[in-house]
Amino acid sequence: MGAVNVWTMAEKPTGSLSKEDRQKIVEGKLGLHKIDESLPGKEAVDARREIVEELTGKKLEAIGAVQLDYDAIKNRNAENVIGGAVIPMGIAGPIKVCGDYANGSFYVPFATTEGALIASINRGAKALTLSGGVQVRVIEDAMARAPVFRLESVKDVKEFLHWLKEHEAQIKEAANATTKHGEMRSIRPFVLGNNVWLRLSYHTGDAMGMNMVTIASEAACAYIEESFEKARFVAVSGNMCSDKKESLVNNLYGRGKSIIADAKIPEKVLSEVFGIDAEQANDTNIRKNLLGSARAGSLKYNGHFANVIAAIFAATGQDLAQVVESSSGYTWTEVRGKELYVSITLPSLEVGTVGGGTGLPTQKEALSMLGVQGPGNPSGRNSLSFAEIIAAAVLAGELNLICALSSRELGRAHSKLGRAKK
Amino acid sequence: MGAVNVWTMAEKPTGSLSKEDRQKIVEGKLGLHKIDESLPGKEAVDARREIVEELTGKKLEAIGAVQLDYDAIKNRNAENVIGGAVIPMGIAGPIKVCGDYANGSFYVPFATTEGALIASINRGAKALTLSGGVQVRVIEDAMARAPVFRLESVKDVKEFLHWLKEHEAQIKEAANATTKHGEMRSIRPFVLGNNVWLRLSYHTGDAMGMNMVTIASEAACAYIEESFEKARFVAVSGNMCSDKKESLVNNLYGRGKSIIADAKIPEKVLSEVFGIDAEQANDTNIRKNLLGSARAGSLKYNGHFANVIAAIFAATGQDLAQVVESSSGYTWTEVRGKELYVSITLPSLEVGTVGGGTGLPTQKEALSMLGVQGPGNPSGRNSLSFAEIIAAAVLAGELNLICALSSRELGRAHSKLGRAKK
Amino acid sequence: MGAVNVWTMAEKPTGSLSKEDRQKIVEGKLGLHKIDESLPGKEAVDARREIVEELTGKKLEAIGAVQLDYDAIKNRNAENVIGGAVIPMGIAGPIKVCGDYANGSFYVPFATTEGALIASINRGAKALTLSGGVQVRVIEDAMARAPVFRLESVKDVKEFLHWLKEHEAQIKEAANATTKHGEMRSIRPFVLGNNVWLRLSYHTGDAMGMNMVTIASEAACAYIEESFEKARFVAVSGNMCSDKKESLVNNLYGRGKSIIADAKIPEKVLSEVFGIDAEQANDTNIRKNLLGSARAGSLKYNGHFANVIAAIFAATGQDLAQVVESSSGYTWTEVRGKELYVSITLPSLEVGTVGGGTGLPTQKEALSMLGVQGPGNPSGRNSLSFAEIIAAAVLAGELNLICALSSRELGRAHSKLGRAKK
Amino acid sequence: MGAVNVWTMAEKPTGSLSKEDRQKIVEGKLGLHKIDESLPGKEAVDARREIVEELTGKKLEAIGAVQLDYDAIKNRNAENVIGGAVIPMGIAGPIKVCGDYANGSFYVPFATTEGALIASINRGAKALTLSGGVQVRVIEDAMARAPVFRLESVKDVKEFLHWLKEHEAQIKEAANATTKHGEMRSIRPFVLGNNVWLRLSYHTGDAMGMNMVTIASEAACAYIEESFEKARFVAVSGNMCSDKKESLVNNLYGRGKSIIADAKIPEKVLSEVFGIDAEQANDTNIRKNLLGSARAGSLKYNGHFANVIAAIFAATGQDLAQVVESSSGYTWTEVRGKELYVSITLPSLEVGTVGGGTGLPTQKEALSMLGVQGPGNPSGRNSLSFAEIIAAAVLAGELNLICALSSRELGRAHSKLGRAKK
Repeated sequence: MGAVNVWTMAEKPTGSLSKEDRQKIVEGKLGLHKIDESLPGKEAVDARREIVEELTGKKLEAIGAVQLDYDAIKNRNAENVIGGAVIPMGIAGPIKVCGDYANGSFYVPFATTEGALIASINRGAKALTLSGGVQVRVIEDAMARAPVFRLESVKDVKEFLHWLKEHEAQIKEAANATTKHGEMRSIRPFVLGNNVWLRLSYHTGDAMGMNMVTIASEAACAYIEESFEKARFVAVSGNMCSDKKESLVNNLYGRGKSIIADAKIPEKVLSEVFGIDAEQANDTNIRKNLLGSARAGSLKYNGHFANVIAAIFAATGQDLAQVVESSSGYTWTEVRGKELYVSITLPSLEVGTVGGGTGLPTQKEALSMLGVQGPGNPSGRNSLSFAEIIAAAVLAGELNLICALSSRELGRAHSKLGRAKK
Repeated sequence: MGAVNVWTMAEKPTGSLSKEDRQKIVEGKLGLHKIDESLPGKEAVDARREIVEELTGKKLEAIGAVQLDYDAIKNRNAENVIGGAVIPMGIAGPIKVCGDYANGSFYVPFATTEGALIASINRGAKALTLSGGVQVRVIEDAMARAPVFRLESVKDVKEFLHWLKEHEAQIKEAANATTKHGEMRSIRPFVLGNNVWLRLSYHTGDAMGMNMVTIASEAACAYIEESFEKARFVAVSGNMCSDKKESLVNNLYGRGKSIIADAKIPEKVLSEVFGIDAEQANDTNIRKNLLGSARAGSLKYNGHFANVIAAIFAATGQDLAQVVESSSGYTWTEVRGKELYVSITLPSLEVGTVGGGTGLPTQKEALSMLGVQGPGNPSGRNSLSFAEIIAAAVLAGELNLICALSSRELGRAHSKLGRAKK
Repeated sequence: MGAVNVWTMAEKPTGSLSKEDRQKIVEGKLGLHKIDESLPGKEAVDARREIVEELTGKKLEAIGAVQLDYDAIKNRNAENVIGGAVIPMGIAGPIKVCGDYANGSFYVPFATTEGALIASINRGAKALTLSGGVQVRVIEDAMARAPVFRLESVKDVKEFLHWLKEHEAQIKEAANATTKHGEMRSIRPFVLGNNVWLRLSYHTGDAMGMNMVTIASEAACAYIEESFEKARFVAVSGNMCSDKKESLVNNLYGRGKSIIADAKIPEKVLSEVFGIDAEQANDTNIRKNLLGSARAGSLKYNGHFANVIAAIFAATGQDLAQVVESSSGYTWTEVRGKELYVSITLPSLEVGTVGGGTGLPTQKEALSMLGVQGPGNPSGRNSLSFAEIIAAAVLAGELNLICALSSRELGRAHSKLGRAKK
Repeated sequence: MGAVNVWTMAEKPTGSLSKEDRQKIVEGKLGLHKIDESLPGKEAVDARREIVEELTGKKLEAIGAVQLDYDAIKNRNAENVIGGAVIPMGIAGPIKVCGDYANGSFYVPFATTEGALIASINRGAKALTLSGGVQVRVIEDAMARAPVFRLESVKDVKEFLHWLKEHEAQIKEAANATTKHGEMRSIRPFVLGNNVWLRLSYHTGDAMGMNMVTIASEAACAYIEESFEKARFVAVSGNMCSDKKESLVNNLYGRGKSIIADAKIPEKVLSEVFGIDAEQANDTNIRKNLLGSARAGSLKYNGHFANVIAAIFAATGQDLAQVVESSSGYTWTEVRGKELYVSITLPSLEVGTVGGGTGLPTQKEALSMLGVQGPGNPSGRNSLSFAEIIAAAVLAGELNLICALSSRELGRAHSKLGRAKK
């Protein structure tokens, strides 16, 4: 669910913050965002930070030292800005990716503060590349939003379902009129008593598309409410989307990119890189990632997809809250003779190469490093390529984790790389 | 699940990278991390980044412009570093928090690239503060790790369960010997056929504690394996922890901090801040956050906990992958006369004020702004206080979202604040 | 998942069981089913029961007193028969049903041993009928089977998905050739690594249809395996059906009949029949059936659908193991002025009026009592009507339970009607 | 959740049903249960059935032909009785069980209408017995009920949690005073906002115990409500029990009997009985029962536990609605050399050998056949023994299903044994 606000902002800051207003802000009588009405970007940021320093008695020098185009950010990425957060960025690779869109060797950027993470992905990448690379396939590509409607009775619900089928074209038209880059592809109703959710799925090109589809869905809902009067619109997101919450509906219908990736790791690589054999790795994977998640009641049958995805998302300006459902998925291994077959499945990887935080300086560079920055073409080629590279990195992270656990080196690694500070 | 690696690093870089080695790295014949064996912190970072620039043909100036103490980071937060990612940081507040640990008005820092988010939390904070503030209570505080063992048969499993009960003291002793700050508090076995998971719960003071408990759990497992020979140790994490994956076992037993927070919003505030009444807000919450999540098969009965938590985690150096289970929880509202009762429940908020990324410059300042930086005292007072403040911010985000949806302003807000770029 | 066996049975029993064979059976050297090769129906049943009596030293008189056409049963409903189980059958009603298929007042039969159950449904039925009856609508009708295939790689998976789309007509043809009454309607693939499940949905007329669709699906799979050689058939049921296990895939896609039913209960009925008001009932329903199930990690957001469905299934010859997913669903209430709006949603009610146990004497009569016995017409009118009546009875059971809990009479009712035997 | 009703019944039927009353009943103006106030058991049953025959125009001869002690049933097992349902009963066995309570070879009774089911269990039983029998262990034994309370605020919730810890003894005393056979063992609170569920677990001897613990829990709740005034009692069952609904809370904490069972099947048995090898069976089990259920979002990782459990429950007078959660569980296999290791785990098998339907004639005999009829001793020895036998039968059903699927005989079996009537 996207966040929501209605802020009235003066078009042009007047250039100064009066003493009275400053005092009111300090006393909490005037909102901190009022500063933006008086001062331009950087000055507003500095003024606000100074007030916070005064109020909390803490110096915020590092935060304030961050240089960004605060005027651009203000209307796009953040509000009430006081500076920036800086996260170390490292890389893993080369990792050989054999996808429909991404083909070649890549160095993948990760922004993280968790020691050992990049090193572990890097080792996985090495093993995968030594094994001939990662095959990746995108099997679905659609962004969903699911408004919820309330009807008077189940009798009306059935009528509504019938009406929806007959007006699919008009609903799509209403939605598509709001966007040049997106297109509604399907409408799936789900019923619970007198409540009906419509899961609306869209193609969104190279954008992750959440905002685009929210606006389009509101237009679709407005049309529906006007045309089928018995349906009362409750909310543009009724949690069957499901945005920023993992869910079975996402696992089954897909959201964003649905991807599969695999590789076969020869005995020699297993032995030389990890010191284990295929049986050990497979046994660990099945008992941990399948049995363990089943027993725990998790929707995620993997080791640490979230680690890899969070670090790439932070580096490339993706929506960090979408790590939640983007890290859903399954790690599946098989013993094939002496080889280890290893695959990962990502049903709902939500990424874009335009919009959101992708245009910020370091994030833009991180995407450019992968050759996927900006809009590719109408079919969303850049974001598809990007998704394939992420899937390969996720596979690298999983392979390494399974193998490391099999050889019992988890705690030792953390001790060594200094994460474990007893 | 923590990441895993075994990297051998030379103690002291020699101060130069030979041409031959550089060439090998470019050709992928030598790992990028070898640079750290030859060059000190910043120089290694620059050398590595230049190689990547050469390999990809892209300039990484903004990434390279980031100033950090790369020597410190290398052994603590990241590997193969090439610079940093910069994310805008803004604040919301003041928000009045009435907790057992945090008491007073706070300005909460958020690092995000998603426009409208901070503004929306800010509006929720305003409404909460006008309503008298947020009551918060931590009801559990324990970090879990769950190794998995394999036995020969169900007969041996029953013996093992009996043995575990009789050796609880020894197992705790083995674990606690590895740490000064942590303490194992409970051992809960879960069985599936001949597999046994032990969910080991620890007090970890002001640290989030994942690495501390991993090392302690490995020691416990070593003791068990030596003493009860029929139990074969499979992996120190068997996914019933569940780290970086949401799960029912976390929702039921808690992980990290388990917190509840609530507030009562008077009619006047609802009307003036949001333009709605209590019935509307309650109706939206129940149909969206309860019914919708139930229908979707989600474990998360909330609107966008993840948005708020991800942005605070990014600002304060928490583990971004733990947004996944930290954002589990429930939003529950009631109509009380003309007032809206609103509460949030966070069963597994995993945070720390020492360790991980909390010592990095901007992150440390963000924590200090809240008065919770560093170790507080042995009982983890700083991290408890921090958790209470996060819970209040989450409540602010939920309140605003529910109310905004009720007044149908979601898409409009995004359009206005520029996130929606059709 | 249906049970499985391959028994070889002699066409015609010879009419006598030799002393030697009898002794071998007693000693466990010969299977009990061998008796059917020597003796006709009733005699075989008696002979087998006598052997069991001898072996266990217990008299099985009541079991043996049951009169059934054992020759007919042998090849249809049960094996190794020794007699019958007798369960008391009672009725609740009249309940007024306003469906698309069932219209009028019905007396519904229940076979149960749980005191208070029928009385409680009866009271709910009374309240519903006083309130003008139950509106019911069937919104989907399809039986699913989901075979699983294994491929070599994700590359082959994508090819397979493409092939499936292009050969939908042929796959349906292969399946439909096996049945006169069933028809495959849709093919939905689900992927996990190199595994592909095909959820095949069928119209099955008045039959519940599990066996029909199993046979048809095997034919479809045989065609697929022969035509797309890279797909290796693993099993005709890969648990995404999901038969005899509740699952989100059933809740989302439906299985058998997907039904909604509702009613509005006036203040006067609430007060006179239950002694409560609408607010109390609604509060109990939301805290128990929504919040409680969400907190418990259940897929069932209802009070006791299973009670009502199990008792009707036992009375009418349905598959008792399918109570599991047939009892999935949601109870949803609203306060409308002084009235209580109450609805139930059954996503996967699996019933038939032909086949299975529906032809047995008491079961056939129970169906005839509802006017739905046997095949209605090709569109499955009898089973649809039956499903609507069940939904109304489920609503009666839920309404009564919510109201009884609200007035705190649960334990008292059990004490009084003698179920509670401390 | 148990059903609920409050029926007032005259102590002694007067022996006749007046014409006027009969007419009122026919017209729906008087309840059908009024007949029991006028006529004794069998006569009331006949009179009621005749009225239904008249109203529906259908003869109910088979239902009416059932002979039962209707006076006894009326106050114990069913209301508004019109006769009985008859279900064929067959047996599988001998199956060798090696439990802590059940030891020896058993013939297990099944009441079912689903052809092939008993035969399939029987073949599994044969293979298990040939393999040396089934090891079974009960690892938990407790029946739960979970009332829900509402508090004013999260502040009060924390106080309540504290109060509960300090008054555990008094709460148990209040509960235990209501029962001679049951005993409250633990109190586990779960919180969601201002709602608190108390999961109360009891030992219930040889009774399944649902009614016993409901009455005891109501007494406990009465004490709590009186003593801690801020806690408002909402309902004695708040769905975290979870009765007649599967749930993770049951899978994790157990309900009724928690059992594990296993066996090792030699190559020779696999080959001769099923025509497959261990690799094939293991592959089918993992892809179907683990991967398939994970992908489907099911809480049940098994093939058809429900089939076996439903048929035993129907034969022995258990609560048929409890098939839902009793059939939760996991089937887990391993390849050990050429042997197949196979295990089943039943976290919440709810059974009793006294109370409910266990005293009815055919049901009582079915229990006696297993040597577990009636109360054994205070520790519930009979119900534990019964549970072990059920677990062995479940393992037989699973083993056969996995192997049959592996050899692709499912549809063929159904065709042959007549279940599949295209």
